[in-house]
Amino acid sequence: MMQAVGHNHAARLARAQDQLGQADLNGLLIGPSADLLYLAGYDAPLLERLTALILRRDGDPVLLVPELEEPRAAASPAGGLLHLAVWPDGGDPFEFVRGLLPSGGRLGVSERMWALHLLGLQSALAGAKFVLATPVLSALRVRKDPGEIELLARAAQAADDAFGLIAGEGLTGRRENEVSRRLFQLLLDQGCDSAAFAIVGSGPNGASPHHEASARIISTGDVAVVLDFGGRVGGYCSDVTRTVSVGEAPAEVREVHAIVREAQEAAFRAVRPGVPAQEVDRTARRVIERAGYADRFTHRTGHGIGLDEHEDPYIVEGNDDPLEPGMCFSIEPGIYLPGRFGVRIEDIVAVTEDGARRLNHATRELVIVG
Amino acid sequence: MMQAVGHNHAARLARAQDQLGQADLNGLLIGPSADLLYLAGYDAPLLERLTALILRRDGDPVLLVPELEEPRAAASPAGGLLHLAVWPDGGDPFEFVRGLLPSGGRLGVSERMWALHLLGLQSALAGAKFVLATPVLSALRVRKDPGEIELLARAAQAADDAFGLIAGEGLTGRRENEVSRRLFQLLLDQGCDSAAFAIVGSGPNGASPHHEASARIISTGDVAVVLDFGGRVGGYCSDVTRTVSVGEAPAEVREVHAIVREAQEAAFRAVRPGVPAQEVDRTARRVIERAGYADRFTHRTGHGIGLDEHEDPYIVEGNDDPLEPGMCFSIEPGIYLPGRFGVRIEDIVAVTEDGARRLNHATRELVIVG
Repeated sequence: MMQAVGHNHAARLARAQDQLGQADLNGLLIGPSADLLYLAGYDAPLLERLTALILRRDGDPVLLVPELEEPRAAASPAGGLLHLAVWPDGGDPFEFVRGLLPSGGRLGVSERMWALHLLGLQSALAGAKFVLATPVLSALRVRKDPGEIELLARAAQAADDAFGLIAGEGLTGRRENEVSRRLFQLLLDQGCDSAAFAIVGSGPNGASPHHEASARIISTGDVAVVLDFGGRVGGYCSDVTRTVSVGEAPAEVREVHAIVREAQEAAFRAVRPGVPAQEVDRTARRVIERAGYADRFTHRTGHGIGLDEHEDPYIVEGNDDPLEPGMCFSIEPGIYLPGRFGVRIEDIVAVTEDGARRLNHATRELVIVG
Repeated sequence: MMQAVGHNHAARLARAQDQLGQADLNGLLIGPSADLLYLAGYDAPLLERLTALILRRDGDPVLLVPELEEPRAAASPAGGLLHLAVWPDGGDPFEFVRGLLPSGGRLGVSERMWALHLLGLQSALAGAKFVLATPVLSALRVRKDPGEIELLARAAQAADDAFGLIAGEGLTGRRENEVSRRLFQLLLDQGCDSAAFAIVGSGPNGASPHHEASARIISTGDVAVVLDFGGRVGGYCSDVTRTVSVGEAPAEVREVHAIVREAQEAAFRAVRPGVPAQEVDRTARRVIERAGYADRFTHRTGHGIGLDEHEDPYIVEGNDDPLEPGMCFSIEPGIYLPGRFGVRIEDIVAVTEDGARRLNHATRELVIVG
């Protein structure tokens, strides 16, 4: 994934360093992740060799990279911003880290750092207490600037276009995993740099929210098929869900679809700056509860999205953080009837100064496909 | 990624449990990873909600899953083998783990468990010492059975076919990142369940072993273009590298290509049971050293491959573990001339009873493309 030009990595690095004191951290250790891409513009391979951005209260940041990836790091924005420290195959990268950070106090690590690396760091700096760097990083990443929202919108558009194309092709006679693979191709065709995931849940499989596309053949009796998929543009993710009917849908499916659509719409209308995140969840849930399906909506209403598919803010009971302009997240209520079918409708939305803007525009009506 | 039927997960789980005593471990905590897929046949989403397979010395194994993923887990082979413990959005999964494992002694975790989860487990079981589960898991995974080798061979075949097609299409006038995206599509077309990565390093970019495909337009002067890519079949990875020339290659490129090819061939011939892994690295390195390019081969010779792109055994100086039948790994020497060009040739090989078998069959000659 490449980032569009224009992200100010130097300012992001400086802001992260500035917050170390307030967060009572002596340093940050950021492995290959959206955090690293956000801070330094470096999209590092997610592999066993240690790559780590090291931020300290005093002193310049350092990017530690394996020797064979030095040219890749140097060619990224990080190469112009950071001192690159290189370790060779067969060497000990943890020894290098030990020379840079105090073995005491608190050190923050990125959420997605592998245990392979965290346990190595904990051994090398045995006197330090390791905690999540999330409070520092989430504070920086959770409000998207206009350039980031533009990339999210382009990723959403590509997903919307892929939906229109797959619906036009029809689903009858195709296997779920064939349709999933086809969605990957359509996401690439429509301008995604990479395709990330494609859930295809037909008939009873639609009642499994994170169903893995199977060899099940979709047929005309499958009056609810959940399609939930996304890719990346400039590093930023899309994530859209539509539920379609293969052939005419019976009254019950139309009714459940209408309830989910109403819940999605109500939650969208609840979004504006100052509203607690959990209020958006409650709004969607109230619609579904009122219709008698309370226990069939088995997950939170949404998740933040950006360089990660799932990130802050989470739209879940218990999160009373107020929404702020620039926050972007999914609104994706669903109703799941085990053994029968499921319906979910998901758009990504961006909080504006006085409300919210949808980044997805594919129709939320129940589409009948062939 | 789906696994072909036939993997004996019950036996794998039993073998892992049997090894806990010898490894001085009170338990294993296995997050979403190839380890989980290998042991239990469950391909769990790599997301923020905790999923963990919990193995103890006594007592049945338990698979802890988020509520919305229970149907997915139940539909996998794990569903028929394991007790599924479910936690809901907003709940505390770490509290559940505390009830199952002793807060003392040693606990093994999968290498790719996220810090988000490992730090939560370390807090919940503050008296335990967390270590890598690798000694137990690698001992199980490193020797592939015939069914696994068959899947690796099919993944390799798809990559070889994708290579033939992209070479036939030609590269002139295409951007590196367009070619990368095209390789993703070809891997899917040729039967991969998913496309994993596609390095395209043209001209000077080929000197960066892990180059990220850029907007650089490939032209007739690019007499060395490194193509390194792979996807998955039944969960098992491919990883092939070929270096092609756009138009006739000058003598120096042909010479460097011939040296790398000779190093790759010599290393392949060195593979047989009982040979230390590092001897394969040394064999490739000797050819390149003799030709005067010792300091231009800046990485180890190879890595194991299976359900992970990179896994044991690593073909690197310092690894004197003897090769055994069923081990599968890459042999991928390279020569990198900064600012000019790079050449790398990579095949996956499987150790046999008396030597080795190549799983890739695309020509290793220098192919001239349009």
